[in-house]
This record gives sequence, structure tokens and C-alpha cells, in this order.
Amino acid sequence: MKFLGRSVSRAISQKSFRLVSARPGGTAVDIEPGAVFNRKSSSITYPPGTSNPPLRSPTSDDAEAFFGLMGYREGSLIRDSETLERYNIDWTRKYIGHSQMVVRPKTTHEVSSILSYCNDEEIGIVPQAGNTGLVGGSTPVADEVILSVEALNEVHGFDSDNGILTCDAGCVLQSLHDYAKERDHLLPIDLGAKGSCMIGGNVSTNAGGQYFYRFGSLHANVLGLEVVLGNGTILNLLNVNRKDNTGLDLKHLFIGAEGTLGVVTKVAISCPKLPKARNAAFLALQTFDDVRRTMALAKSELGETLAAFEMMDKAVLKLVAAEKDIPVSVEDCSYYVLVETQGSNHSHDEEKMETFLETTMEKEYVVDGVLAQDMRQVMTFWYIRESCNPVVKDMGYNYKYDVSIPISDFESVIQEMKERLKVRPDAMVVNWGHVIDGNLHFNVTTPGDFEENPEILGLIEPYLFEAVVRRGGSISAEHGLGRCKNSYLGSLAKDPVSLDAMLSIKSTFDPNGILNPGKYFPG
Amino acid sequence: MKFLGRSVSRAISQKSFRLVSARPGGTAVDIEPGAVFNRKSSSITYPPGTSNPPLRSPTSDDAEAFFGLMGYREGSLIRDSETLERYNIDWTRKYIGHSQMVVRPKTTHEVSSILSYCNDEEIGIVPQAGNTGLVGGSTPVADEVILSVEALNEVHGFDSDNGILTCDAGCVLQSLHDYAKERDHLLPIDLGAKGSCMIGGNVSTNAGGQYFYRFGSLHANVLGLEVVLGNGTILNLLNVNRKDNTGLDLKHLFIGAEGTLGVVTKVAISCPKLPKARNAAFLALQTFDDVRRTMALAKSELGETLAAFEMMDKAVLKLVAAEKDIPVSVEDCSYYVLVETQGSNHSHDEEKMETFLETTMEKEYVVDGVLAQDMRQVMTFWYIRESCNPVVKDMGYNYKYDVSIPISDFESVIQEMKERLKVRPDAMVVNWGHVIDGNLHFNVTTPGDFEENPEILGLIEPYLFEAVVRRGGSISAEHGLGRCKNSYLGSLAKDPVSLDAMLSIKSTFDPNGILNPGKYFPG
Ligand SMILES: Cc1cc2nc3c(=O)[nH]c(=O)nc-3n(C[C@H](O)[C@H](O)[C@H](O)COP(=O)(O)OP(=O)(O)OC[C@H]3O[C@@H](n4cnc5c(N)ncnc54)[C@H](O)[C@@H]3O)c2cc1C
Ligand SMILES: Cc1cc2nc3c(=O)[nH]c(=O)nc-3n(C[C@H](O)[C@H](O)[C@H](O)COP(=O)(O)OP(=O)(O)OC[C@H]3O[C@@H](n4cnc5c(N)ncnc54)[C@H](O)[C@@H]3O)c2cc1C
Repeated sequence: MKFLGRSVSRAISQKSFRLVSARPGGTAVDIEPGAVFNRKSSSITYPPGTSNPPLRSPTSDDAEAFFGLMGYREGSLIRDSETLERYNIDWTRKYIGHSQMVVRPKTTHEVSSILSYCNDEEIGIVPQAGNTGLVGGSTPVADEVILSVEALNEVHGFDSDNGILTCDAGCVLQSLHDYAKERDHLLPIDLGAKGSCMIGGNVSTNAGGQYFYRFGSLHANVLGLEVVLGNGTILNLLNVNRKDNTGLDLKHLFIGAEGTLGVVTKVAISCPKLPKARNAAFLALQTFDDVRRTMALAKSELGETLAAFEMMDKAVLKLVAAEKDIPVSVEDCSYYVLVETQGSNHSHDEEKMETFLETTMEKEYVVDGVLAQDMRQVMTFWYIRESCNPVVKDMGYNYKYDVSIPISDFESVIQEMKERLKVRPDAMVVNWGHVIDGNLHFNVTTPGDFEENPEILGLIEPYLFEAVVRRGGSISAEHGLGRCKNSYLGSLAKDPVSLDAMLSIKSTFDPNGILNPGKYFPG
Repeated sequence: MKFLGRSVSRAISQKSFRLVSARPGGTAVDIEPGAVFNRKSSSITYPPGTSNPPLRSPTSDDAEAFFGLMGYREGSLIRDSETLERYNIDWTRKYIGHSQMVVRPKTTHEVSSILSYCNDEEIGIVPQAGNTGLVGGSTPVADEVILSVEALNEVHGFDSDNGILTCDAGCVLQSLHDYAKERDHLLPIDLGAKGSCMIGGNVSTNAGGQYFYRFGSLHANVLGLEVVLGNGTILNLLNVNRKDNTGLDLKHLFIGAEGTLGVVTKVAISCPKLPKARNAAFLALQTFDDVRRTMALAKSELGETLAAFEMMDKAVLKLVAAEKDIPVSVEDCSYYVLVETQGSNHSHDEEKMETFLETTMEKEYVVDGVLAQDMRQVMTFWYIRESCNPVVKDMGYNYKYDVSIPISDFESVIQEMKERLKVRPDAMVVNWGHVIDGNLHFNVTTPGDFEENPEILGLIEPYLFEAVVRRGGSISAEHGLGRCKNSYLGSLAKDPVSLDAMLSIKSTFDPNGILNPGKYFPG
């Protein structure tokens, strides 16, 4: 990989680009059951056939009642064990539930009747959208009823003057991107799972994704929600205005509540215009300080066109290069960065990108780099970045963390953890992340060994979390708590006062605690 | 005013620009007592010397106790009637309280002790920052204690890698802009009152302002808050990470809560980089459809550089031109638009602006226009826009409304109201607003008559609100509820279910109802 302004970029473009994009465009994420790992979880799990007390196990009579509440519509109730598996096993295959029934309501009214019934009967409910969450939030801890929103999947309108889309919670993110694209807009959220995840799931996890730096969080972009509360009450917060200062903005409570306060049934979201131009560069850097300096330069030189700035370390890029056919050779640089611009004028953006790259070279922040020559190359850069996750997942057991740290402390946290893990040479630290958002995906893998090792886990947890919190960071940047980090909510993540406040809101919206029991809040 | 590409713009630049900017840079807003109007308000007000039951009136003993809680620090307690006036009278001079004491704590701990005392003693507290709010939220309805945050005014840190500022609630917005500017950043909020309003007040009203389209709301930009609850409990939500998905994001409840849930003491806020280039145009258009089309074109042609798109109608511009020395002559066009771009490359932005303007002319969306030649001209355009408010306020009684409406319905609402007001030829409808956010400032004035007229008021309210709600709009876009629109919260603004949910949150955070009584929630 060489960077000498334009010329070398052309050299890259002559290489064969066999790798058609995995992303954007995203393909559906298939859930293949099997190869199920067990992972120590801080939350309690229950054996098949038992409920999560004091909630009771749903019976066949309950199933019949649900079926009736959905007008005995075909496909609205799932009870056969083969189909159930898809809903009981999560994407990571670490969190497995024992639900005996999935309900698939088609209207908000049906959701309301089902919740009201479960509230009266004290039956647990697990809201589920695309089931791609990474913290075990979407599958039952015991035999709760799974309420899938996948049949709530209509688009209700698009205000093209304002770019405001109103749709059901079960619309697949990719399909919304397609819908918006036809209207010259895009969704302000984009992630690797977009072929499967649904907008209701994205809202419920406050998902971040690739273009968070550009568009901000879902708190910034969701304008309104319709939510059904624990007792079946329909809370209509479906505002479709960019500005609405009338009363407490309750919708924010449900953004990132991971299904513990209510079932999100409809979403109104602000959609930016499609960019006319996209451009990307892939850079090799010697030190993390160079990454910081390059990032600062990108902010000032690429300014309003800067859309993404993603970091990978040498270790992960080497793994990707070994497993995938990618058009970059990994040399002796410690860090690699993907920079993308999106704008309304291609030649302006190109000029900005060139100035930026020249300056990084002049100032010797960057050792080497390539500039994409066309959209296929932009996609290829993203393919490299997106391969980190699956490559690491496939090569051994993956100790997976998603933390926020002030950029100035990124390296010291990584060093501290590497130091701790020195006693286990079989454990390899590999890092990548949305560095511009202060978001590090810290990963440890044991190549060839697919079993969780308690000693390695003990070297990481809770030390990583403590190291992060000591520096003012967050133990969950974008993936949430689920049943993976819920035990830390009142201690490392937030303090007991905050937890108390959250619990009183929980009891307001879900007085019988039927919604997503055993998750999010400490057990 | 003529537009012929560059040449006429130059002609404009030769005109004398005597009007030095009123904005940005903003001057302090002085509160001059006197000329006090009485306005029918939907909330109850109380005569001097009485409290808002069941809360009791604070006594001299209470004052002594407060003084002690603040270490008898000089200036921490205000009791002389002349100084009190400044705190009792709001900016509009319509909402006048009868408080006998102002406390000015200097630490969060002091705020906590005062609130704890008032909670035990059931004494009402009105949090106050810059006292520039427009809906009567910052002054007492009776004789509540005013808690001014103006002595909480330190900056606690700036993370320059991430552009994250942490400061006290009483920092004046202008001073924060100055602080950030020295560090090559700006605050993501900017408004006419920035010389007086404080960040704690901005957060508490979820203020919008000029660059809302570019940067989004405070829900998008505030990262963390420290808040003291009704009973004195300190709630530490002072996250300084861009991403933090650990538990319910409670800070959003306090953004726009108008001091009814707690006193905001500290704010962490994300600050964008200072733009290197600013550019602006002032356009004349024949119809509102032309405004819509021009706005759509601005979005696509100016793209990521588009920072503001403000609308004024002929009626208001004529008033401004009659009162102020402005370098545009108002001709027969019905609408006028101010477009601003902010970017990282001046020549790119200029080229985009020129293409945009040429296209608007070619397509005949725009009749006439001028392009600013330098920053002074940019400021002059803003001076025109910013003069709407004071000019209308000074010429007669001002029936003032701030609503959100889908752009496609803007004109029909205005027409409907003009039709209703036809029977009163003395009542003049004048409009302006942040049209790109769907935000209309609908105003009626009775030139020369400074008394509120019940018949005119009866022709506007609640019909305007109903007209707005019928079209899916909001009866308060950015100014909030205070004691001006609080009676509509459970009906026109939100439904009774939402109001119930809000009230249960109110009772969680302020169980004795001591915080800002008589406001926000219906009486
Ligand atoms: C390949 C891959 C890439 C990913 N990339 C990113 C990324 O870049 N950034 C990021 O933030 N995350 C990422 N994730 C994780 C991310 O959280 C999810 O992909 C997504 O937001 C979850 O959506 P879902 O529809 O699959 O929800 P689910 O997995 O079905 O549910 C997630 C949580 O929300 C709750 N929930 C779901 N629907 C509702 C509803 N309608 N009402 C109430 N609660 C509900 C569930 O109970 C559960 O707690 C990735 C995941 C994968 C597999
Ligand atoms: C000339 C002018 C132009 C304006 N332009 C705009 C505009 O473009 N956009 C816009 O949205 N608004 C605008 N406003 C109104 C706007 O709401 C206020 O200017 C500003 O946000 C209020 O800040 P403040 O510090 O003056 O708060 P105050 O007026 O003191 O208080 C406002 C409300 O917040 C509460 N409050 C204040 N501080 C705290 C605290 N620390 N903790 C808890 N509660 C608190 C008060 O009780 C009150 O209910 C304008 C006002 C003026 C006078």
C-alpha cells in the first residue's frame, strides 16, 4: 500500500476488486442455529420449562387467548419448536431462551390487548425486532412470550419537504433505506446488520453505527414514537415536527430502553438528503497520536463533508488480510484509518480530500494511504472495516467489548489491558472502532480455541470496565446492557441514585415488571 | 434590491452599512422595568404577599436559614425591593412575580441544601437563569423563592479532541461562545438573547435558535447534566462521552422541563468546530410555493453547507424597513428569505451559493436577491431578520405565537387566521420564522394600541392552536409552555395519557411540588 497523491490510488484501482460490498446495501443476516456457546452471564438464566419468578409460565390456554386477540390470523402465533428456535437464539448464539410461543401482532391495538392480558396474568414478554442485538436483550431469560414486531411493517408516510418518515417498528432498516433512497433521502442510521435489524430494534437499543459522527444519535433524529406500555396503555408520542416544546419529551425514555418500558410500535424519524458525492481514503499510521492528529485535521479540512472516521489496529487488519482477499498489504504501521466524506459537490469534496491527504503526508502524520477512485473502492474500504467483526468471531472465542473512552485515554486503556493479558500469550488483543465518536471495540480472541476461558475472562472483567470508568468513559457505547452488562448499571455504569430514578420510571411504565424481565436493570 | 449575479451584490456593498450587527456577538438584553402590561394568562396568578397553596410563604427566618446554607456569603441573598424587581419581572414584562427573596448559590451542594430545606418546609422555588424566556416560566406566580443560577458560572473543562465543554448552568451563552471560539469551536446553539441567557436556561427550555437546522436540538448536543431534584438529591448524569448506552437516558427529561423537575447545575455539551467560511444571501420571492421550492433547492445545492434558512413576510419586512435603516428596499414580493452557509472552504461555499442562486433565478423561484460580499453584510442580513421581533414589539400590543406546522400547511394556517381576523382591520398579521424547521412565528399587532384587546385575542385563541393541531403541528415549537400555554398540555399539546405519564414523573422528581409551581403542567 503506497500513497503518492493520485498515482498510487490509480495503481490500487487496477487491482482486481472481487469483493463486492457486504455493506452498504447490506445482506440479510442469517441466524444459523448450532455451535451454541455458553457464556457466563451476570444475569440469572432459567432451565427450560420454568418461568422467571414471580412471573408465571404461559400455558396453552394463554396461547389460545393470544391467538384470539389477533383474530386467529394465520402466522400470528408460532408454537412449533423448529420455528421457535429462530426467535429463542440470539445473533451471538450466547443467549438462548426457552420460549414456547411467539406472538406476531399486526396492529398497535393487538399489541395493546396482548400486553394488557400479560399484565393482568403476570406473564413475561420479550419484545423482539430483528434479533441482531449483541447483548442478549432480544431472547428470553426463561420461557417468556416473545412478541415479535415483524408483522408491524408498513410505511405510513413521507413528508418530502422536511424529510420526515413515519413507519411501523417492524420495518427492516434496509427496506427503509431503499424507500428513502427512491425519495432522494437516506436514514440517519446505518449499520452492518441493516439487512435484518428493524427500526423498532434500532430505536430500542439507541443503535449508533457508521455515520453517527455525521448525523448524531437516534435521540437527535427520532421525532416521535408510538409505544404500548406494560399494562397495554397506548402512549401516543408520534410527533412529526422538527420542533415541539410542549411538555416532557417522553420519547427519549424509550430510545435505548431495550424493551423494558414499553413496546415501540411506530417511529417518526428525520431523514437527511442523499449525498451526491461520496469519497473515501484508507490510511496507515505509525502511532495513536498520529491517529488523533489526523482526526483533528480531518475535522478542520474535511469539515462539514466528513462522514466517518474508523480505526483498526494492525492486529485486526492482519487477521482480515489473512482471511479475506483485500487489496491492501499490511505493513509495519500500528494503525489504519478509513475516512469517508459525503457531500453535495463531487469536485469540491475531492479537492478537500486531496488537500487533507497532502497535509497528513507533509506533516508526516500518515505513512501511507490510498484514495478511492470510485464507489466500488469506497465499498471495498468498508468491506475491510466490516470484516473485522466476522473474522474475529470465526477464528476463536471472542471476548467482545464496546466502550467509550476520551480519545486522549484510548491508548492507555489498551496498554493497561495488554499488560494484564501478558500472562496469557494465547489471548490476542485486537481493536477497532468508531474512533471519532470515542468508541472503541476492544476484543480479545483465542485463535483456534472456541471455549470461553474463565481465567482470561477474569483478567478482563471487571478490569476493563474499571479502567474505562476511571477515565470518565462508558462501559457500553452503543450495544446496550441486555443481560450482558446489566449488573453494572447501579455501580460502574451509573450510580445508585440514578438507578433508583430509573427504577421508579420502570415501575411507572411497567408496574408488574412483565417487560423484558431479567435484563437491563440489575437482577 | 436587484440580483444579477455578482454585479448587483457589489452595488449593495457600496451602500453605507451603518447598522452594526445586533447579533452574532449579541449585546446583553437589559430588563427595563416599567411599561408593564397585563395579559390574560391561562394560569392562576396571586396577589403580593400570598403564596401558591399548599406551599407556604417564605419568612425572614427562612431567608436567614438560606443565608446560612450559603455561608453568609455576600451577595448570596437578595432582599431589597429594587434589586428584586429585576428577578420578578420577565423579559416580556407580562409575567410579574412577588418574590421577596432571591438566593444565589455558588455550588451544587448549596443548591442541594436549599432545595432540601424548601422541600421539607414546602416552600416554592423558581429556578432562574438569564430571565429571557418568553412564556413566563422564570418569574414566580406568587411569592416563591427565586433560585438564580447566575453565581454558578465556571467552565470546568474542554476536551479539544472531541469538542466537549463542561460548565456550570449559570454561564452566559455569549461567554461560552467566546470561550469556545478561542479553542476554534462554537456552541451548537445561538439565539438573539445570547448576551443574557444562560446555558442552564437554554437547556431547561430546549431552546432552538438560528442554527437548529444545522446542529439539531439540545437533545442532540447535550451529553450530560448534573441536576438537583426537588428534595435536594443530586442526580449526576454528567456523561462526557458522545456515546453512552448504559440505562435510561434520564438527562433528556430535564432538557425542556422548564425547571419543574430539578435545578440544572452543570452541563456537558458537544461543540462543533468553528466554520472557516460564512456566506449569506437575501432573496425576494413571489409566493410561498416559491419559498418551498427554493428551500428544497437550497437543501440539495448547498447541501452540507446550509446553516440557516429564515423567512419573513412582506408585512414584517415593511415594518422593519420603516423603522430601521436597512439596505434593502421592499418591493412587491410577498416573501423574503435569508440563507446562510457555513463551511470549511470559502471558495467552495461561494461556488455552491452562486450555483444555487443562478438556479433559483433560472427556475424563476426567486424574483430578486443579494449575495453578501463580506461578513459585515452577512451581519446586516441577520440584523434585518433580528429586527422583526423588537420592531413588532415596539409598535403596539403584540399577540405572539411560536408554532410548528408541516411546511405544506404553512400558508393555509396563515390564510385561515387572516380570514378570521378580517373583522378587525386594526389587527395586522405579520409573520416570520425558522421555516426550514417548520417553525412559524405568527404575530398579530395593533399599531399604536398597546393594550391587549380581548376581542382580538378571542379571534386568535384557541383557533390558531386548533388550526395548527389539526394539521399535525405543535402549539409550541421552541419557546415552551411556562404559564402561557400550560393549560393546553393535556389537550391540544399532548393527550391525557401523556399528561398522566408526565405527572407521574413530576411526582417522582419533585414529590412536594416545590419546583416552579403553577407552570408547565395545567393548573
Ligand atoms: C453484524 C452486526 C453489526 C452491528 N453493528 C452495530 C453498529 O454499528 N452499531 C450499533 O449500535 N449496533 C450494532 N449492532 C447491534 C445493534 O444493537 C443491533 O443490530 C440493532 O440495533 C438491534 O436491532 P434489532 O431489530 O435486531 O433488535 P433486537 O435484537 O430484536 O432487539 C434489541 C433490543 O431491543 C428490544 N426491542 C426490539 N424491538 C423492540 C420494540 N419494538 N419495542 C421495544 N423493545 C424492542 C429487544 O427486547 C432487545 O432488548 C450490530 C449487530 C450485528 C449483528
Ligand atoms: C431576544 C430574544 C430572542 C430569543 N430567541 C430565541 C430563539 O431563537 N429560540 C428559542 O428557542 N428561544 C428564544 N428566546 C427565548 C429562550 O427560551 C430564552 O432566551 C432562553 O433559552 C432562556 O434562557 P434563560 O437563561 O434566559 O432562562 P430563563 O428565562 O431564566 O428560564 C427559562 C425557563 O427555564 C427554567 N430554568 C432556568 N434555569 C434553570 C436551571 N438552571 N435549572 C432548571 N430550570 C431552569 C426557568 O424556571 C424557566 O422556566 C429568545 C428570547 C429573547 C428575549
